[in-house]
Parts: sequence; structure tokens; C-alpha cells
Amino acid sequence: MSEAAQTLDGWYCLHDFRSVDWTTWKMLPEDERKEAVNEFLGLVEKWNQTQENKQGSHAVYTIVGQKADFMMMLLRPTMEELNVIETEFNKSKLAEFLVPAHSYVSVVELSNYLASGEEDPYENPHVRARLYPELPKAKYVCFYPMDKRRQGNDNWYMLSMEDRRTLMRSHGMIGRQYAGKVKQIITGSVGFDDYEWGVTLFSDDVLQFKKLVYEMRFDEVSARYGEFGSFFVGNILTEEEFPKFLSV
Amino acid sequence: MSEAAQTLDGWYCLHDFRSVDWTTWKMLPEDERKEAVNEFLGLVEKWNQTQENKQGSHAVYTIVGQKADFMMMLLRPTMEELNVIETEFNKSKLAEFLVPAHSYVSVVELSNYLASGEEDPYENPHVRARLYPELPKAKYVCFYPMDKRRQGNDNWYMLSMEDRRTLMRSHGMIGRQYAGKVKQIITGSVGFDDYEWGVTLFSDDVLQFKKLVYEMRFDEVSARYGEFGSFFVGNILTEEEFPKFLSV
Amino acid sequence: MSEAAQTLDGWYCLHDFRSVDWTTWKMLPEDERKEAVNEFLGLVEKWNQTQENKQGSHAVYTIVGQKADFMMMLLRPTMEELNVIETEFNKSKLAEFLVPAHSYVSVVELSNYLASGEEDPYENPHVRARLYPELPKAKYVCFYPMDKRRQGNDNWYMLSMEDRRTLMRSHGMIGRQYAGKVKQIITGSVGFDDYEWGVTLFSDDVLQFKKLVYEMRFDEVSARYGEFGSFFVGNILTEEEFPKFLSV
Amino acid sequence: MSEAAQTLDGWYCLHDFRSVDWTTWKMLPEDERKEAVNEFLGLVEKWNQTQENKQGSHAVYTIVGQKADFMMMLLRPTMEELNVIETEFNKSKLAEFLVPAHSYVSVVELSNYLASGEEDPYENPHVRARLYPELPKAKYVCFYPMDKRRQGNDNWYMLSMEDRRTLMRSHGMIGRQYAGKVKQIITGSVGFDDYEWGVTLFSDDVLQFKKLVYEMRFDEVSARYGEFGSFFVGNILTEEEFPKFLSV
Amino acid sequence: MSEAAQTLDGWYCLHDFRSVDWTTWKMLPEDERKEAVNEFLGLVEKWNQTQENKQGSHAVYTIVGQKADFMMMLLRPTMEELNVIETEFNKSKLAEFLVPAHSYVSVVELSNYLASGEEDPYENPHVRARLYPELPKAKYVCFYPMDKRRQGNDNWYMLSMEDRRTLMRSHGMIGRQYAGKVKQIITGSVGFDDYEWGVTLFSDDVLQFKKLVYEMRFDEVSARYGEFGSFFVGNILTEEEFPKFLSV
Repeated sequence: MSEAAQTLDGWYCLHDFRSVDWTTWKMLPEDERKEAVNEFLGLVEKWNQTQENKQGSHAVYTIVGQKADFMMMLLRPTMEELNVIETEFNKSKLAEFLVPAHSYVSVVELSNYLASGEEDPYENPHVRARLYPELPKAKYVCFYPMDKRRQGNDNWYMLSMEDRRTLMRSHGMIGRQYAGKVKQIITGSVGFDDYEWGVTLFSDDVLQFKKLVYEMRFDEVSARYGEFGSFFVGNILTEEEFPKFLSV
Repeated sequence: MSEAAQTLDGWYCLHDFRSVDWTTWKMLPEDERKEAVNEFLGLVEKWNQTQENKQGSHAVYTIVGQKADFMMMLLRPTMEELNVIETEFNKSKLAEFLVPAHSYVSVVELSNYLASGEEDPYENPHVRARLYPELPKAKYVCFYPMDKRRQGNDNWYMLSMEDRRTLMRSHGMIGRQYAGKVKQIITGSVGFDDYEWGVTLFSDDVLQFKKLVYEMRFDEVSARYGEFGSFFVGNILTEEEFPKFLSV
Repeated sequence: MSEAAQTLDGWYCLHDFRSVDWTTWKMLPEDERKEAVNEFLGLVEKWNQTQENKQGSHAVYTIVGQKADFMMMLLRPTMEELNVIETEFNKSKLAEFLVPAHSYVSVVELSNYLASGEEDPYENPHVRARLYPELPKAKYVCFYPMDKRRQGNDNWYMLSMEDRRTLMRSHGMIGRQYAGKVKQIITGSVGFDDYEWGVTLFSDDVLQFKKLVYEMRFDEVSARYGEFGSFFVGNILTEEEFPKFLSV
Repeated sequence: MSEAAQTLDGWYCLHDFRSVDWTTWKMLPEDERKEAVNEFLGLVEKWNQTQENKQGSHAVYTIVGQKADFMMMLLRPTMEELNVIETEFNKSKLAEFLVPAHSYVSVVELSNYLASGEEDPYENPHVRARLYPELPKAKYVCFYPMDKRRQGNDNWYMLSMEDRRTLMRSHGMIGRQYAGKVKQIITGSVGFDDYEWGVTLFSDDVLQFKKLVYEMRFDEVSARYGEFGSFFVGNILTEEEFPKFLSV
Repeated sequence: MSEAAQTLDGWYCLHDFRSVDWTTWKMLPEDERKEAVNEFLGLVEKWNQTQENKQGSHAVYTIVGQKADFMMMLLRPTMEELNVIETEFNKSKLAEFLVPAHSYVSVVELSNYLASGEEDPYENPHVRARLYPELPKAKYVCFYPMDKRRQGNDNWYMLSMEDRRTLMRSHGMIGRQYAGKVKQIITGSVGFDDYEWGVTLFSDDVLQFKKLVYEMRFDEVSARYGEFGSFFVGNILTEEEFPKFLSV
């Protein structure tokens, strides 16, 4: 049997980052701007329905700095649904005034380094709640992709299953200290996007992102084996605030 | 004699990724949009003829996320034909509303690490079917380019032929476990494009891409010697669905 | 307890770099240009009020070379306020003639490698002055982001707390030699942006930036463990000079 | 005396890659398109004259994939002449519809690792034919830039002259096996462009590029010491075919 | 005392690379083109005055290949003056038809590895001539930025002052062999731009750039410790030739 840790996989996930082209947006007559915003809110309303039906979830956050103006995070049972949503959004009026800034394709994942292996985990309600989560309405979000390093003597994939399990256990301990303060959703992207995992953190205290990631960096799993991509941080953007965010 | 593994080479291959400029596409009157779609479908009809005549093959898939909106994968007996198709496509009406997103030039390749060397492999029907394949109509595609690493002690090209053969044998075993679930087409691109190989995976279960690539990552060939480029994943885009995909 | 150094965190910080699109700016009628400049000066006036109220601070500097034309550095008690300022600026008339060039999100940080640990540092007025600083009106600014290296034997995060403390002490000595010549503001960006720290230097003698950074490079903390991003250098741009800077 | 191998240097070389902006090109009235093509063919006619006078050489090839639509390779006795040709081309009508895609500046070079050192090599007709070559009318071209590696224990420039000579001799043997199948022009670019050498291969069998580069990769000179840039591959574009290539 | 070599610092330096947007330039009526060229020549005339007054120096060169069309190198006593010149240039008519291609900010620097330390070097006329140089009217220019490497066992900044002095001495010997053939201006950019130094070479024989840089590459200072950025090479562009260069 393979040394690869088996994973449990839930909903597919698209992080979609956009910037506003404010100059052309301002050129649009106000009634057309209103129409464009309403069309977008109509899409969000459909997403809300899907979420109520437990057929997916979503979140919208502004992004601080020039990397993007806002991010949509979308969870759905199939890759096709993500594609349909993305294309529908791209065809909307609002999208004419947005610039694609970044995206990430992945699937909600639980690693089974700690699995007991006795029951069917997909039937376990705790597991299901984590594989098919409703995204929280936290005040802040943090997203970054990451790899496990394969460099010289620091090659995660050449470690034995036992060594990886031990390292991950201590790594997980740090995360657990932040329970109640930071909600973490790990999505796997091997074969789907350029890094191996995406990490999305939610919190009502933005400083906890820094504390968590910094503390983990001293843990051997990150210190020797972590390779990190770009970090995005932002504030929640509710449907109520969306028109104001776009009002010019 | 050289330590390089001899390869068997089949059809030349172009992966061509495009994004739609939805804003200008929507500005086009509907009859002209219809005309542009029909012109493209006419090209596809020609490609279908070629495929029926066993003179090539092709596949069209959407791409999830912002890396591209769709991908055309084209196989032809000569590099000139790929160039002719590409130029013909670039001159089409539809192409005026597309943005080049990525491309990859390669040739279908079988390595002969396991070759017996007794017969002319190009006459073997099993070999021919793999060198001149008809691309499957699978629901999902995954594409990524890769190199064999040449870094310090992890230098694939400094290993003996025997060591490489042993490593590739165990690597191939993993692939074989996915037989029936994932169809894999390896294309060589040394001297043609920026990585040494392109890997195109087809499956009716998109999760199998993640499982296969992740499991392989623990195999020494990938763990110590694999360097990976960008990953693209998408859903099949049939001729029937193409007009709907572009309808605005 | 974790080996991570605890940090003290103050105001959130946005470095926002912009280039002027002089060609379109010149196309604008003079009265509209004046209006755009005045609108910007109105924003600065609000920022001045905030600064007087000790609720934040800001600085505006030109940038030499093509990386950007000017930089705004903004400090505020919350991430939301930074986002509000950024969005307000993006919606301004002037922003229509600016190109986003770079940005950096962080939080003013004091590391406690040297902390005594007896009192609540957030009550210490010296600490507060450094966590919630009023940015100086120095003639020159220098900004760069940096990481601590994690490569082979040069892995900062695998060092013991004791070793890191010793190294940082000697590192700090160099900085202290520049006291009175260079004011240094360290901002932490782990979990917020692509590097782990941002360094902003202020001085009335631009050559001191070079001397300080060069001398530090020979210190083991930088020599073995420092990874540096892009460097930006510029001259102060006062409200009085701003209209002249933009007059065409 | 220096350990650097002395080189023999011939004509200066510019590889100039361009993509066609088909959308704007199609907007141009047919007679103006014809005029633009004729103007370009007039430039080529001048280049032909220069080639007949043995004062330079040139080649034009399409490029497969999105990296570029075509490449012009130009050889001239001085750097000024390359600059004059480039500027003249940039001012042409056709250039208004082209997008610069890539370029490379170098000089035809023969290394003297194998030099006998008895005669003046610049007087040797075999040497002269290689330093001032007429580019072949082969069906295919392959271009890539490369460096000799300087990394840890794999540092070409720290090897002794004797070791480098021995390694290059065996490297050259592989190249010689392709004599008659692949013509190779090495151009040196140390001090001129971002890599140390450019390699341009010509062949009537495009597969030979892959075989040659792949076989060489197992040779220690490439395996341990080669760093490769982007690879470009294309088909010959004759003056006769040029109008058809651009007809829309 | 620090192990850092003390440096002598002279005039501040801006390398400013621009490409011409020939398409829009050709759209401009001839009299306005003439006006734009004259305005630029007026700026150059001011720079000439400054140079005659020994208050700075400048040079203008075309650049071969697509990296840029021409480069302005400017030396001034203060960073503010560089900024003023740059902004003045950016506001000029000609700049509307130029695309920023690259820039580099630094300061003329002499390292004192060989300093005797007895006199005030800033009073030494030979030193002054090198810190405040009049740029030569050589036929060719070569510019590249560079770092001293800090990687594993090849870490320049962990060497002792003595070892660095010995290495630099032998490195300098190579440079001295090119005295009379190549004039070299070293500018320091630690704290100012992305590399640690800029190197600008001037010669009447362009091949000497390649010979010098290649020979140095075998010297341990470059072989083990040099990291190089992009190389730019070009031909002198005099005021007399400038109108012709821009005539269309």
C-alpha cells in the first residue's frame, strides 16, 4: 500500500479575486451601475438558496492592498458547478468593470493522518460538517496556497508515513490552540492548481492570522517543509454593504 | 551507446489555452456572434474529419479558474499542420474576442525503459494506438508540464540507465492502479517547449486526478526528481455546448 | 510554550505605490486637474486630522525610478480603516489617472526578543510611542520587505529561541549606531502579505540607508538568514509640493 | 593567463520574435495590408542583397504556440547594423500590427577548447565559414538560451580548464552524431543578454531537435552544468509564403 | 568595528530605459513630432550645461533588442535632482510616446578594499574624478545589476574582510587588463534598488564587454559569489542622431 496519506474530499472550491476598474465603472450611468449591482446581488441570492439547501456555500470579502479589490469563495459538490457559476459571473454586467486578479481551484480536504480507520468517515457527522462546511460570517479572511517542500534534505515526500504523522500531530496542536479564535479550511489542490493546498482562515480578530501563521512557522512542518505562495487578507463584504462598496 | 532512454514519438501536439474577452464579445451584434461561433464550429468539423480519417485528434475543454476559459488540444502528424491550424484559428472572427492564455508544444511519446527491443515497435498495434491516439471524450481534463530535476544530489540525468529503469518501473505501477479510471497521455517537449514533458490526464471522475498525482508525489521519481509547472483542470466542452458557453 | 518570539502589535499599515499616467492626466482640462488635486488634498486633510487625534499617521513620498511615482504610507488602528481609505482613494478623481504599482499590508511590530516580561508592555509609554508612531517628516524614505531564510543549513526557524535572541541582539547593535540618523519602523506581515516583514526607513541623509543596509548585510542575521524583496527609495512630497508635482 | 577559454567571435546576431495583432490587422483595408507586406518584403530584399554580398545573413521562421507568431534571425558584422535593421523594422507599417514577443542579442562564437593554437584561426576558411555563416533554408528551427551552472558543487566556472576541455570534448561527440541532420549555431551573449549563450538549431526533421537536446541532457555538461531558458520551435517562412501567412 | 568594507560614494545615478510606441508616434503630425524632439533636445541642453558646470553628467544610448529602445544614464549630486529630472522628462511631450522599460537607482561607489586610509579620499583628485565622473562618449554601453551571493557555502557576506580583500584584489587585476579598452563605472544600490550594485561599461569595441565579463566569470568572486540580473547593450545616441532615430 502506498505511503501517501489518504484524504477525505468534500466540496470543490473556487477562490476568485477581482479588482474594480473604477475609471470605467464611474463612466457608467448611475441607473446602469445600479442594475449591474442588482444583477450581482441576484447571483448572490441564488448562492444563498444553494447554501440554505446545503448544496454549497460561499463568502465575499474585500481584499486589502492592490492584489485585488474583493474575493468570492465558492464551494460546490462538482467542478462543473464551479465552472457554471464562474462563467455566469463573467457574463454579468458587473464583470465588464472588473479585472481578474487571481484564482485558486481546490477541494475541501481532511487528511487522515489521525484517522482511526474503523468507520466510514463520510458517514460521520463531524467529518461531514468539515467536508461540506457552511462558511462562517467572520469579520476577516486570510487565504494562501502552500506546498510541502522537496529540497535536498528537506523533502517531505521522502519521509516515512510514521514521521509525517508525528510531525503533523504536533503541527495540529498549534492549530488547536486557536480553536474558537480562528476557523481554518484546508483545501487540496494537487492536480487542480499550482500549489498542493489552499489555506483559508476566518476570524473576528485579524491579528490572530498573524499569530497563528507566525507560531506555526517555528514548527518543523512549516520551518523545514513549508513553501508558501501569496497571502491575501480582507474584511467581510456583506450583501448589505456591497452597493455602498461600489457606489461612486 | 548513449545512456538516454530512446523514445517512441507519435503525433505532434499543441495545447492552446484562451480566455474570452466577454466585454467586447457582448458588444458584437448577436448575428455576428452567431457567425463567429459557426465559423469556429466549421473548424471543429474539419478537425472531426481529420480525426475520422485517423490523421489526428482533438479535444476542447473549459478551464476552471482565471488561468483560461477553455483549452484546445490538437494532435497532428506534422509540426506544420499544428501551425496551420493555429494560424487559421487566430485569423477567425472568434479569435478577435479571445486572449491567448497559455500554450504548450510537444509530441506524443512512449519511453522505452521497459522495451524488449525485438520487434519494430512502430509496427506494434498497441504501440501505434498509444502514439496516434484518439483523444477520449472524458468529462474532465488535467494538464501540467514537468521536468526531471537536476539539483545537487537529486539529479535524474546523472543516474545510471539501470537506476532510472528501476525507478520508472515502480512509478509506472502507481499509474497502472488507475487504469480504467484515468487515461494518461505523455507528450515529450524537450527542444520544443519550456518543460521536458507535458502530462494530459482524462477521467470521468475529477477527484482521480488529485488522487493519482498526490499518490505519485510520494514515489521517489516525483518526490526527489519531479519539478512541476502550472496545473490546469477543466470540464469537457462539446460542440453542442459550445454555442451555449458563448451565448451572452 | 512555543519557541516563537511573542510580538507586540500596533497600528495596521498600508504602503500604497502609484504611478501617474501623465498622458491621460495632461488630456484633462486644467480646472478638472485642479479639482482632482484639491480632492486629494482634502483626503490628506482628513488624514492630518486623524493624525492630530492620535488615531493614525501617514506619509507621502515620491519614488525615484520607474517602480512608482509616489507612495502613501498609512497607519490605522484597524484593517477596516485601511480598506476604507484605500477604497475612498480609488474612487477619487485623481485615481483615474494613476496606475497601481505596488502595495504592502502589515502591522507595526516590536519583537520581544529583549523583553523583560514584568510589566504590560502595552502600558509602557516608550513602547506605545513605537507601536502607534507619528511618521517623521524626514527628507527621504526607503521601503523593502524581507523574510527570514529557511534553506538547508540556513534555517532561521529551526534555531533555538536562545540562538535567535543572541543573533538579534548583535543585529540590533548595528541599528542603534544609526540612532538619530535613521528612524526605522518594522511592520510584521506574516499572514497579511507575501513577505514576513516590511522595513520602512526615514532619514534626512539618503546615503544612510545604503550604509545601514550594507553594514547589516555582513551581520549573520542578514548574511545567512535574510531574504530581501524589492527596494523603493524616495523624497518627501509635502502637501505644499503636491500640486507642483502634478502640474503639467 | 586566464582560465577562461578564448573564443572566436563572428557576426553579431539578433533573434527578434513578434506576434501578430490579428484583430487590428484585419481592420486595415486590404490595399494597405498589401502595402505593408510589400514594404516588409522590400526589407527582406535588402537583407537578401546583404547576404549575397556576404555581409550578413538572415532567416524567418514561424513559431508554434503562443510565444510568438514568427521570428527573424539576423546576422551582421556590427552591433550598429543590428540596431539599424531593428529600428527600420520597428518604423515599418507592418510593425504597427505586431507585438514584440521576445528578443536575444548575441554574437556567433566558436569556443577554442579544441584549438591547436598554431595558425590565425580567423584566416582558416573552415573557421570563417562558421563565424560568418549563411543561415540554412532548413524546414525547422529551434532556439533556446542557456547558462553554465554555478550552484554549490555544480559550478562550471570553478572547474579547471583541463576538466572543462574533457567534458566539452565528450559533449561535442554527441553533437557530431547529428552532423548532416542538425545544423547548430552557437552564439555567445555574455555581457549582451540575460543568458550566456544562445543555441539555434536547424533541421529538415523537427524530431531531431528533441533527440539531440534529450540525448545531450544525459551528458555531464548539460546534466550537471546546463541551465536552460525558454525553447522556441518553428517552421520556415519563405518570402513566397509570407503574404499568405498574413492574408486574412 | 564592522566587517563591512567602507565605501566612498559620489553622484547619485539613474538609469532610465524607454521603448518607443512607434504606432502612436507615427500618428502625431510631423510638426508636433518635431516639437517633441526639440523639447527633449532642450532638456539635453540643460543636462549639458550641468555637465559643463561639473554638477553632474549624462549619457544616452540606444538599446539593442526588445528590452528597450534607448537608455538615459543620469548622474547628479542629490537624489532630489534625479527625481526632478525624471518627473520633468515624464511630463514632456515625447514621454507620451514612450513606454517605461526599466530603471535603476544607485550611487557612484568606490570600495575601499585597497584603501590606505591615510588621507581623506574625498580630497584626492583621482578619487574625485571617479566619484564625480564625466561619462565618456564611447561607442557602446553595457549595463547590468549584480549581487554578491549568500547561498549555502557560497556566502560572500560570511567571509572575513581579509578573504574578501584577497579575492577582490585578484578580481580587480582582470579589470585592469582592460584599462584603455573598457571604462567601468560601479554604482552601489544597496537600500536603493533590487540588486546590490549596478555595473556600467563603456567601450569603443563592443566585443570587449563580452571578453571582460566572460573572463571575470572564471574568477572566484564571480564564479562562486556573483549573481547577475539582466544585461543591456547599446550604441551611442548623440544629440545629432536623435532626430533621425525618431524620424518616421
